[in-house]
Amino acid sequence: MQPQRDLRGLWLLLLSLFLLLFEEARAGRPLVSCPAACLCASNILSCSKQQLPNVPHSLPSYTALLDLSHNNLSRLRAEWTPTRLTHLHSLLLSHNQLNFISSEAFSPVPNLRYLDLSSNQLRTLDEFLFSELQALEVLLLYNNHIMAVDRCAFDDVVQLQKLYLSQNQISRFPLELVKEGAKLPKLTLLDLSSNKLKNLPLPDLQKLPAWIKNGLYLHNNPLHCDCELYQLFSHWQYRQLSSVMDFQEDLYCMSSKKLHNVFSLSFLNCSEYKERAWEAHLGDTLTIKCDTKQQGMTKVWVTPSNERVLDEVANSTVTVSKDGSLHFRRVQVEDGGVYTCYAMGEAFNETLSVELKVYNFTLHGHHDTLNTAYTTLVGCILSVVLVLIYLYLTPCRCWCRGVEKPSSHQGDSLSSSMLSTTPNHDPMAGGDKDDGFDRRVAFLEPAGPGQGQNGKLKPGNTLPVPEATGKGQRRMSDPESVSSVFSDTPIVV
Amino acid sequence: MQPQRDLRGLWLLLLSLFLLLFEEARAGRPLVSCPAACLCASNILSCSKQQLPNVPHSLPSYTALLDLSHNNLSRLRAEWTPTRLTHLHSLLLSHNQLNFISSEAFSPVPNLRYLDLSSNQLRTLDEFLFSELQALEVLLLYNNHIMAVDRCAFDDVVQLQKLYLSQNQISRFPLELVKEGAKLPKLTLLDLSSNKLKNLPLPDLQKLPAWIKNGLYLHNNPLHCDCELYQLFSHWQYRQLSSVMDFQEDLYCMSSKKLHNVFSLSFLNCSEYKERAWEAHLGDTLTIKCDTKQQGMTKVWVTPSNERVLDEVANSTVTVSKDGSLHFRRVQVEDGGVYTCYAMGEAFNETLSVELKVYNFTLHGHHDTLNTAYTTLVGCILSVVLVLIYLYLTPCRCWCRGVEKPSSHQGDSLSSSMLSTTPNHDPMAGGDKDDGFDRRVAFLEPAGPGQGQNGKLKPGNTLPVPEATGKGQRRMSDPESVSSVFSDTPIVV
Repeated sequence: MQPQRDLRGLWLLLLSLFLLLFEEARAGRPLVSCPAACLCASNILSCSKQQLPNVPHSLPSYTALLDLSHNNLSRLRAEWTPTRLTHLHSLLLSHNQLNFISSEAFSPVPNLRYLDLSSNQLRTLDEFLFSELQALEVLLLYNNHIMAVDRCAFDDVVQLQKLYLSQNQISRFPLELVKEGAKLPKLTLLDLSSNKLKNLPLPDLQKLPAWIKNGLYLHNNPLHCDCELYQLFSHWQYRQLSSVMDFQEDLYCMSSKKLHNVFSLSFLNCSEYKERAWEAHLGDTLTIKCDTKQQGMTKVWVTPSNERVLDEVANSTVTVSKDGSLHFRRVQVEDGGVYTCYAMGEAFNETLSVELKVYNFTLHGHHDTLNTAYTTLVGCILSVVLVLIYLYLTPCRCWCRGVEKPSSHQGDSLSSSMLSTTPNHDPMAGGDKDDGFDRRVAFLEPAGPGQGQNGKLKPGNTLPVPEATGKGQRRMSDPESVSSVFSDTPIVV
Repeated sequence: MQPQRDLRGLWLLLLSLFLLLFEEARAGRPLVSCPAACLCASNILSCSKQQLPNVPHSLPSYTALLDLSHNNLSRLRAEWTPTRLTHLHSLLLSHNQLNFISSEAFSPVPNLRYLDLSSNQLRTLDEFLFSELQALEVLLLYNNHIMAVDRCAFDDVVQLQKLYLSQNQISRFPLELVKEGAKLPKLTLLDLSSNKLKNLPLPDLQKLPAWIKNGLYLHNNPLHCDCELYQLFSHWQYRQLSSVMDFQEDLYCMSSKKLHNVFSLSFLNCSEYKERAWEAHLGDTLTIKCDTKQQGMTKVWVTPSNERVLDEVANSTVTVSKDGSLHFRRVQVEDGGVYTCYAMGEAFNETLSVELKVYNFTLHGHHDTLNTAYTTLVGCILSVVLVLIYLYLTPCRCWCRGVEKPSSHQGDSLSSSMLSTTPNHDPMAGGDKDDGFDRRVAFLEPAGPGQGQNGKLKPGNTLPVPEATGKGQRRMSDPESVSSVFSDTPIVV
């Protein structure tokens, strides 16, 4: 009978396993009804203002919106919901006492699109806290005690469009969130108003496209007052960006422990903001963006002569590229003027004007000019050096030391005066002393009409050989004069 | 001095006018700051649970989300906001005491997408109440005291996708909201659960596409129990529609003042629901929809032989049309079988199987068959009538009355027996009486091999003219036989 008993045991085991599986399968069906503290309207569970200390147990798996606002929740643990709520798209947890959120709290709600954690007691946003929320579009974190936003807190939250961090204690601007092509490519609103920001990465902010700056709220922060800040916000004001236009009166900065409105920085003597024109040189390649306040607008460019710029024309030097930018292949002088971009969007239309200034020379030609000046200068210096060599290192000194008159020193001083950049060709200056200094006369002659521009000597001009007077005549075979053949300056022996 | 005084007055007037205009211009800019009762985070105004009896005055024009839930508002007048809030997309008014909403209340918020009026004291939804809200996508009206939904209350709310009317006193099903091509073309969720619905327009509901039925919540209503209702919800259960699957236990109906679960209607002896196959005849044109639970899915059809049906193939009789339906140009017998539609959506994928039964005759051919039977019958009757005429209205009666044998009546009864649909050709029946009745033999001959199918007489077969015996020969000009052509019954004079 032993084998039969074994079989019975096996059957019982299989039966109980089957029943267990069946129960599991039944549990998979949403037979969980509306929790006692909640009001249920099909897939909406409204459990607000019920003084709940915890999230109700066993929420129906079909829940799409769960409202737990105005309760007494203090911690959101990893196991706050035992069932995965894959249909949940909105979770409202505002007006609670939340001071802790587990890093795994959002694993059971992977399809959440709207998360309201405003008006709680949160102090930090840990790394990868929201990383599971890859469908999240709106995150409300205003009115908490957040001091630090971890650089990795929003990693992988690639769909995030609106992030409200207002009314916290944040002192570092989280540039990694807004940089184009960065962690949050779809972010169009970042509210950092009413925080503790003192310094902003101004050059980085200025580089951002207008559709990011339009939703970058920075009012009510103790920013450091300076003209760069004024110039930044003046530009945003000129562009009529919402972040500045809606809160002009609340845009403060701090100087000498006093708050000032950014647009009344008269004590700093900042220069008024002026929109700068685009500058280009002949033949340059240039791309001008139509920097609209909204993404995905349809853009049309019009030339200074009121002609529409077409997308792709073979012979045209100016075209509109796929992203709506104006593209110049080779800028011409006649391309200069004011271009207008008409942008049509879902919510509003926008008109942008851009001035283009074209310089009447190529950037390459400009370098040529510089090179000419440089070579002229080098030529001048070389000439002077050679003159000096000619004047002081001539071989005659060794031979004629005995017969030289003491007045030769006077002549040397005279020739050295010629080194001034403005040669003083006074015919009378040497006239009374031409008794023993033919060299001076020989040098001065070519410096007159034969002298080239910039003090250069014209190569065609040969110095007239002075008449052989017996004394001072140079012998070509003189071994000391060999070095002189490497010099441009005439050697008068 | 009078003119000078007049000028002063004019200047003062102009100055005051200028100041007024200047103030107006300033007011045009959003210099309205955050209302005292609210918490403001850039474009969000959270004024919930503040015991507000009225909406705060002068809301900033840039407000995008206004939360006024959990307050004491009782009326929403036309002038609740003096400024137009064109940026407002979400208005939360739940958990108030609202019992009146002006028909012009929503004029200042034309771009509202989300309106929460749940948990209030509303009793009626007047005509054109929401007509200004042409961008509205979600409307929450659950937990009110709404008894009647005016047929025009949702006119022009063309973008509405989700309408929650749960936990009200509604007793009429608002069919005008869900009918395809009706007022709300984008409605995918209509929550009518926990109301006072007794009767549903069952045939209309069954016709709705699955993506509407999937979001049509009808649980917790005192519906009238019958098998039609059971069949409707059984079909929805078979299709795994959320509206039934998520609330199987709450789907009640009422019979004899008792509530029953719809799926346990054993006392009604309803037949079990079975999915019916599509039926077609040879050569039919047929379109089978891939009736998915979600709109805008990508659909792929696979034939019974596991081949993918292509969109447009010139020679193929079965194609997939633009809306994802399976289209047969001319159904063939070999087209029968189970077709599978694989639908890929954003949220989930779906697989649908459809059985197609093809009858081996054309619908037109079937008519032909009927016509053949009909004409055969008519032909038969006509033949019988002619035979009877031949038998009883022959002119010989007038001539041969004197010489006729009494046994001629027996012969008549024999010939009338031939009218039965199963002719009994007993050769012995008349064999012993063939002394004076050549006519009977003459008629039986063509009913043998010469008779066509279905009892039709072949046109080639002509009745053999009985041998002229002198007696029994019929004269066509007999005046007494004329009346017989108008009568079906043989007239025996």
